Amino acid sequence: MKSYFRPEIDALAGYTPGEQPKMPGLVKLNTNENPYPPSPRVRDAVANFDARSLRLYPDPTADALRDAIARRFGCRHENVICGNGSDDLLTMIFRAFTDPERSMAMPDPAYSLYPVLAAMQGAESRLIPLAEDFSLPGDFLEQAKGANLLAFPRPNAPTGVSFARETMERICRDFDGIVLIDEAYADFADDNCLDFALRFDNVIVMRTFSKSYSLAGLRLGYAVSSPAIVDGLMKLKDSYNTDRLSQTIGLAAFEDRGYLAECTAKVRSTRARLTAALRELGFRVLDSQANFVFAAPPGGDGKPYFDYLRQNAVIVRYFPAPRTRAFTRITIGTDPEIDRLLALTREFVK
Amino acid sequence: MKSYFRPEIDALAGYTPGEQPKMPGLVKLNTNENPYPPSPRVRDAVANFDARSLRLYPDPTADALRDAIARRFGCRHENVICGNGSDDLLTMIFRAFTDPERSMAMPDPAYSLYPVLAAMQGAESRLIPLAEDFSLPGDFLEQAKGANLLAFPRPNAPTGVSFARETMERICRDFDGIVLIDEAYADFADDNCLDFALRFDNVIVMRTFSKSYSLAGLRLGYAVSSPAIVDGLMKLKDSYNTDRLSQTIGLAAFEDRGYLAECTAKVRSTRARLTAALRELGFRVLDSQANFVFAAPPGGDGKPYFDYLRQNAVIVRYFPAPRTRAFTRITIGTDPEIDRLLALTREFVK
Repeated sequence: MKSYFRPEIDALAGYTPGEQPKMPGLVKLNTNENPYPPSPRVRDAVANFDARSLRLYPDPTADALRDAIARRFGCRHENVICGNGSDDLLTMIFRAFTDPERSMAMPDPAYSLYPVLAAMQGAESRLIPLAEDFSLPGDFLEQAKGANLLAFPRPNAPTGVSFARETMERICRDFDGIVLIDEAYADFADDNCLDFALRFDNVIVMRTFSKSYSLAGLRLGYAVSSPAIVDGLMKLKDSYNTDRLSQTIGLAAFEDRGYLAECTAKVRSTRARLTAALRELGFRVLDSQANFVFAAPPGGDGKPYFDYLRQNAVIVRYFPAPRTRAFTRITIGTDPEIDRLLALTREFVK
Repeated sequence: MKSYFRPEIDALAGYTPGEQPKMPGLVKLNTNENPYPPSPRVRDAVANFDARSLRLYPDPTADALRDAIARRFGCRHENVICGNGSDDLLTMIFRAFTDPERSMAMPDPAYSLYPVLAAMQGAESRLIPLAEDFSLPGDFLEQAKGANLLAFPRPNAPTGVSFARETMERICRDFDGIVLIDEAYADFADDNCLDFALRFDNVIVMRTFSKSYSLAGLRLGYAVSSPAIVDGLMKLKDSYNTDRLSQTIGLAAFEDRGYLAECTAKVRSTRARLTAALRELGFRVLDSQANFVFAAPPGGDGKPYFDYLRQNAVIVRYFPAPRTRAFTRITIGTDPEIDRLLALTREFVK
């Protein structure tokens, strides 16, 4: 049968998200979900939601939520755009700034969705190898030169490593193109770069409700940038991209700052304990600023460890590329979940 | 300030969705929302929803809903893809099948979002004028030749006119490209073209929960097509494009066939009454198969009528293009809302 798809789409392998297996009793540490439930205010927002209101379209720009976000960061709502998860925002950003003449650059390894989004646009991806310790190489900016979009997760995924703020600031100031800082994991980190989105005209900082707010199932994210960039992205946005329930629930979660602080503190404390315990067992564990750790078992091959955990109903993530295959990425679970993982790990290293 | 946007995006005016005004007491007949609330099963699905489950990602392909849709239409779930509203599916379809070498053709007037989506891709839009009665011209297929994507709303928007099934079938069979039949309003019509999506490899039929299911605020739509086309669109889909609440609520609404039949029957009955009453008052009213009517007041200018209604807190839609400016598009409301509109209309024509 003849294909009418654009050749770029026919050529595309597509992005494979982490598995969502349905086995009971599984310890699921593979997609960086938060092990704690969302804020009690989320439960109340669902319980008090008037289902009859669903007959009407939502606010196309989610202004109640945008206003709350703008207040939090001391900017105007013209600096904020909401998306159906960060994925929706990433899609808009790649459609806005990449094409066969406008390439994307990124550190490698980083979020493997970026090159897929670039390929959809027929755009080249320049993967700039990170240093041995997964920090940015000294000549990163030189290597990125000529790209129109420079995309970073910070903290980085799948490594959990956070790049130095001074380095990020220099990149934002000196890069001739859009700098996208994907702060999906920033609420678990010691610092963030949100202020750069307001200080530099060419910087976009993205956040999501999926991780720190325990709302991966809701699909809600936002980006902060200059009004000119937000305006342009608005043109590409599906008219009503965030729904009534998401807007209401997202706002309820966002306003519960105490609960966010409590949950992220628990995750950080478990992260420290897991890091120390794995190192004790001979693993190389990168210093993580995210809600996961990137850990290489003794022997330099992540696969047998990944397989062993899987056989024992603990699912983590394994990336078979050359730079990542020594490692597995382990999402921070509850303390009992991490205890189970550590008990299996002790068996494994024997 | 230098723009890093693709020139196509800088040049884009963007699509303006219908207003969502917030005045109290307003009769809102401008965006084709259903005047009746969603099924009582929707209320129950919200009330019984476990908010804790939101910490986990949703099913990326919404398989419980896809299976229910496939069962209803006697196909397999490989024939079905779900979207964050039809908008999300339209975006995927235009990204899949249009670019500077692959143009889009459509009847004119039709849904004004299509040319905006084509422009985002740098693709040309060929607008093929409808006949005086807003039916397809005899040489439509010849005029569409060479386009890679042929997009129709059926029933058409903003006219409400449905194109003959035999004509649609011939187009599906003979057009060398993708035929997209956007059946947003099909549940209000006497017939539909869903079977063509399963009989022809190049046909996509789209449906939405926004209109007939009274769930515009939820953002949920689906497309039925050949497995090869669904596979290709899946590559372009955001990984988790429909959220947990939408999947649960959508399924509950979809399974309540009795309520759907009851609501659409009420809308059709009010549509017949409104059509007759406006004709009585000297309006030209096209035969509508949708949940709105396209009606031209005596005198051949829709604008003063639109303005008069608006001054009296009744909002309808006016499209100032040459082919549409004699008309206003009036969404079918409740009977009391339509009575209010008719009372004002009687004043207006005096």
